[in-house]
Amino acid sequence: MRDTHPFKVLRCDSVSTNEFEDQVVVEEPLEVRVNNHSIGITMRTPGDDFDLAVGLLRTEGIIQRFEEVGTVAYCPDEQDANLRNVVNVTLVDSRRSVHASRVRWATSSCGLCGEAPLESIRRNVRPLQCSMSVGREVVSCLPGRMREHQSNFNRTGGIHAACLFDASGRLLLIREDLGRHNAVDKVLGAALRSAIKTTESVLMVSARLGFEIVQKGLMAGVPVIASVSAPSSLAIALAREFGLTAVGFVRDGSMNIYSHPERIVHAL
Amino acid sequence: MRDTHPFKVLRCDSVSTNEFEDQVVVEEPLEVRVNNHSIGITMRTPGDDFDLAVGLLRTEGIIQRFEEVGTVAYCPDEQDANLRNVVNVTLVDSRRSVHASRVRWATSSCGLCGEAPLESIRRNVRPLQCSMSVGREVVSCLPGRMREHQSNFNRTGGIHAACLFDASGRLLLIREDLGRHNAVDKVLGAALRSAIKTTESVLMVSARLGFEIVQKGLMAGVPVIASVSAPSSLAIALAREFGLTAVGFVRDGSMNIYSHPERIVHAL
Repeated sequence: MRDTHPFKVLRCDSVSTNEFEDQVVVEEPLEVRVNNHSIGITMRTPGDDFDLAVGLLRTEGIIQRFEEVGTVAYCPDEQDANLRNVVNVTLVDSRRSVHASRVRWATSSCGLCGEAPLESIRRNVRPLQCSMSVGREVVSCLPGRMREHQSNFNRTGGIHAACLFDASGRLLLIREDLGRHNAVDKVLGAALRSAIKTTESVLMVSARLGFEIVQKGLMAGVPVIASVSAPSSLAIALAREFGLTAVGFVRDGSMNIYSHPERIVHAL
Repeated sequence: MRDTHPFKVLRCDSVSTNEFEDQVVVEEPLEVRVNNHSIGITMRTPGDDFDLAVGLLRTEGIIQRFEEVGTVAYCPDEQDANLRNVVNVTLVDSRRSVHASRVRWATSSCGLCGEAPLESIRRNVRPLQCSMSVGREVVSCLPGRMREHQSNFNRTGGIHAACLFDASGRLLLIREDLGRHNAVDKVLGAALRSAIKTTESVLMVSARLGFEIVQKGLMAGVPVIASVSAPSSLAIALAREFGLTAVGFVRDGSMNIYSHPERIVHAL
């Protein structure tokens, strides 16, 4: 089973703190090749990778019928024989050239050429050196404050928010978007434009805490990211290595701290 | 206000059907250019576009400080002067070349060169001609059946599912992934590999109904897509034009039908 992974987590509520083992969904890059040419990378949960590769070829309009497919197989990784993150699909018409000319925002995770997900980040990001701390009771209040300021959620029910708060829980900025990554980019861009120090802020997101969210926070030097929802395995690994405090499931007065709990302090 | 848009919707529960006007979150492509060279496209909700552009440059590691930015401005669209979907950022160091070499899955929406989002789809997809119908009471049951079969959700709380059901509500396939687009690609790929007819199936997703989900469904000829959550404006526009039935907010015995309601029948 590679689709979930156990992590040691601190579960806190208003009266207690307990360490327990949380099952976290695994996130890893999958590169898909057609006739041995890379056509794209997606961050996915391992499992059913051949379905995913064939499905992508179908939904990208590269194949219409399964009869067009010759073989589907993992490519061996020279560094790590156990790594199964590249799938090659051969087409029956092997001379067909397949273009993936459409470019979209990619993450630093997507090291082509078999680069491990964290490698390219290691080159670009220095571990956080930040002594900021924030009260546990402050973190507990953030989802409610975010929701109060979400102008569009109540009208549409389908939009994400990202907020920056200071250590006392005061809202500094909020931005909304149907894409959770966009909401984070908007709020970090707004901070840069208005000279708000992200290095002394808590980033609160309405969405799951995936790898890209943590990566974006790290690029902007944010020391604490909190979410109402679950983190991914790669998000936790990234946060632990680079000194970022990742807090998930901030709900109903409790929270799970997945990395660097020293920044979340208990006032009582 | 361009961030939400009204759509006429059929709201159904077990006893009644009412037309009402729903506010839907707007989804449109934003192309970001640096020194007039395109570096990527993201599907976003219009608004705070300069924050988004600057934020992306920051989180992609292209800039560290706002002082590196010269100007931020919309590029005029030659076809439609009101369209503000391209932002150009000039850097103070205008000779700096910026690469966006990382390629990831893109949608057909992302017509570079100012192509409208639906144009490239019009070239690749034919409108659905499918007489399949499904009972309203069947659709109501699908979220519960999906949840029963989600092996990982209860353990992690952070994984999406996509299912194919037949018209009687029988589960044909289920796939899970932390990425909702991956879950859809997995289930459609699995259908192709196991010769399950997507053209006679209902695709049920645990996630919001964005443009890309509807696009993927259309590429596989799926006639009905249902979601527990909200659709985007572009998802509805795409579904309406190409003859796909889009159903959102399937919860607690009621649902909103956003397009082609003729496939959702009332047994009573």
